[in-house]
Amino acid sequence: MTRLSEKDIIGIFSSALGIADLDDVAEIPLGKKALAFKCDMLVGMTDVPEQMSPRQAARKSVVACASDLAAKGAKPLAAMVSLGLPRSITRGYVEELARGFQIASQEFGVKIVGGDTNEASDLVIDCSMIGLADRIPPRSGAGPGDIVVMSGLFGYPASGLAILMGSARATGQFRKQAVDSVLEPRPRQDFAVLAPLFSSSIDSSDGLATSLYEIAAQSRVDIHVDYEKVKAAGVDEFAQANGLDLQKLVFYGGEEYEIVATIPKKSLPKARALAKKAGIVLHEVGAVKKGTGRVFAGKSLLENRGYQHLA
Amino acid sequence: MTRLSEKDIIGIFSSALGIADLDDVAEIPLGKKALAFKCDMLVGMTDVPEQMSPRQAARKSVVACASDLAAKGAKPLAAMVSLGLPRSITRGYVEELARGFQIASQEFGVKIVGGDTNEASDLVIDCSMIGLADRIPPRSGAGPGDIVVMSGLFGYPASGLAILMGSARATGQFRKQAVDSVLEPRPRQDFAVLAPLFSSSIDSSDGLATSLYEIAAQSRVDIHVDYEKVKAAGVDEFAQANGLDLQKLVFYGGEEYEIVATIPKKSLPKARALAKKAGIVLHEVGAVKKGTGRVFAGKSLLENRGYQHLA
Repeated sequence: MTRLSEKDIIGIFSSALGIADLDDVAEIPLGKKALAFKCDMLVGMTDVPEQMSPRQAARKSVVACASDLAAKGAKPLAAMVSLGLPRSITRGYVEELARGFQIASQEFGVKIVGGDTNEASDLVIDCSMIGLADRIPPRSGAGPGDIVVMSGLFGYPASGLAILMGSARATGQFRKQAVDSVLEPRPRQDFAVLAPLFSSSIDSSDGLATSLYEIAAQSRVDIHVDYEKVKAAGVDEFAQANGLDLQKLVFYGGEEYEIVATIPKKSLPKARALAKKAGIVLHEVGAVKKGTGRVFAGKSLLENRGYQHLA
Repeated sequence: MTRLSEKDIIGIFSSALGIADLDDVAEIPLGKKALAFKCDMLVGMTDVPEQMSPRQAARKSVVACASDLAAKGAKPLAAMVSLGLPRSITRGYVEELARGFQIASQEFGVKIVGGDTNEASDLVIDCSMIGLADRIPPRSGAGPGDIVVMSGLFGYPASGLAILMGSARATGQFRKQAVDSVLEPRPRQDFAVLAPLFSSSIDSSDGLATSLYEIAAQSRVDIHVDYEKVKAAGVDEFAQANGLDLQKLVFYGGEEYEIVATIPKKSLPKARALAKKAGIVLHEVGAVKKGTGRVFAGKSLLENRGYQHLA
């Protein structure tokens, strides 16, 4: 029997539960508002490199939720944290985890209102978060002529992981930025101010290619992005110096926690003005075209794959 | 260094996060309504006896949330499920888990709107659930003169676990009820109809003694319950036949998923009428008295302890 991939598993659950429109963030209508609901599990053995402190792990477990809510323009209301902890856990370790949650709570403006504590063989942190929005942009709303925008550039986390794992070397500012992007990821909450203008949006934590494919497939359009405009500074040189595949670092890394969205052309001046006022950089990196759910970087058709658990 | 207990860990987190009033269900004010938010993690090695099927484990992971929301009179809005699955997982196992979530979704009237899939060394299921209520009864509202009520009687899950673990024997109807209470627990959603009358309430899943102590301590009262009125039928004989401690089975077992609440005396006729109309049994088992946070069964002061992970 072939091993099941994360995609297979999601497929089995989606079909059993009748969830047709799979989104990282579920939308629950609530009067005139929409409630955004999201959960994300961090597991020691797969999500916590040995250089990551318990404080950083706890903080990171909240990042994915904060990032997803930001991509949907939802203001965090509250979070809950379920913990699985090994029996051998020390007081110092628990205090550091608690400190990480405290930091995340302040940083992301979300009160952690409760949780659950359990014994487990490995560290497991599951964060669930709810937030409120006037409207939650879908993945399916991108139309031909829309502009593809991003909250930041791509390639640091995959580079940082390669450095931390010892399979690549880097120095100076690039090393610091790459490693920090793994240990202290920064979700783009400021960018949520643009969400009312998004025709579609997604948080890029499963990888840029996958994220673009999600929008392209669900919106039944093609997406074209400019390779030069999406890659982060220094990734090119880092890839070359270490004999790594640049495309892999930029499009298939994941855990960037950037917001990827589309904006109708007519809303672009407003988006630029809002971004300027908020002091954020609006990266305009491509265009939506009539199509069949494909994604191109320059002239190359990208492969539709990203990071998958159990793959 | 002494090992940390679940209580120690909760203490560290509560103090770091400034959660003064720890409740299993967090209340988030939302206009004129209150949103109830709850999460519960099930871990294979501690929460899944080998006789429990993956279908039952998935269903059980939703039970704790449904029970807690019912104790607070909150109608489920939506649930999310984060999964940790071993790499060796089979399609059949995943399909059975999915079937369990499907059953729970229908049974508890809650749509499972999304989730997260991860690789882990052991089965981990974290369910988070939100629900809406007009008002969420606190743990701190019991006043002298109130009546202590329960949705059901106590002792089956601890008996069932002793049977499943092979440390006790039983036959016939008792065996079936005790074992079913472990493998297919039934949270008391029907009882939520009485929640508007509760001065305080709690779900009893951490054990009856602990649950009563929570209300007594937070309400600064003493609670007196009638031992004969709280023990489930047959537990007495089962304890005697197997040389087990009856008090332990009834007061310190846990996972009963019964609702324990207090009702002001003047609301009792209304509660009885509502219960009759809803076809549920209102167990009136004791009284709230002036006091200092103690719990008595008959004339004996109970010990304040329940099931704790990592203990």
